[in-house]
Amino acid sequence: MSYTVQVVIMPLKELLDPQGKAVLGGLENLGLGAVTDVRVGKNITLQVDAASKEDAQRIGEEAAKKLLANAVMEYFEVTVL
Amino acid sequence: MSYTVQVVIMPLKELLDPQGKAVLGGLENLGLGAVTDVRVGKNITLQVDAASKEDAQRIGEEAAKKLLANAVMEYFEVTVL
Repeated sequence: MSYTVQVVIMPLKELLDPQGKAVLGGLENLGLGAVTDVRVGKNITLQVDAASKEDAQRIGEEAAKKLLANAVMEYFEVTVL
Repeated sequence: MSYTVQVVIMPLKELLDPQGKAVLGGLENLGLGAVTDVRVGKNITLQVDAASKEDAQRIGEEAAKKLLANAVMEYFEVTVL
């Protein structure tokens, strides 16, 4: 069966996020001063052929660990949709 | 009150996603052939000062429309967490 697996990858909370800071500046210039912080990460959706939802979750986590996320700078969350 | 607003931005389904195709190739090389399709987008979290959840949602949608997403190539979903 084919499952859709969502992998969200965000910069670690302890680290600066220069891209987020740049977006925050841009939003302020557009008059959206109500936004006080921005963090920019990735959203990756995988189509996975797997025998079960648990199997799809395991494959998604393996993909995130081995290729998609950089554990030094990022954390990730895997969800089977 | 401060709300966390999540903006997910993905390439339109009708368009090719070369970054996703590159990731798919990388996963195959790592032995993760169970993954049959990959699409890569952005996950942006905003901290928003707003009077209500509806207000925070509106500000998130305005930010997505005006700055974060490119409507020609991408669609977005805004969720107040």
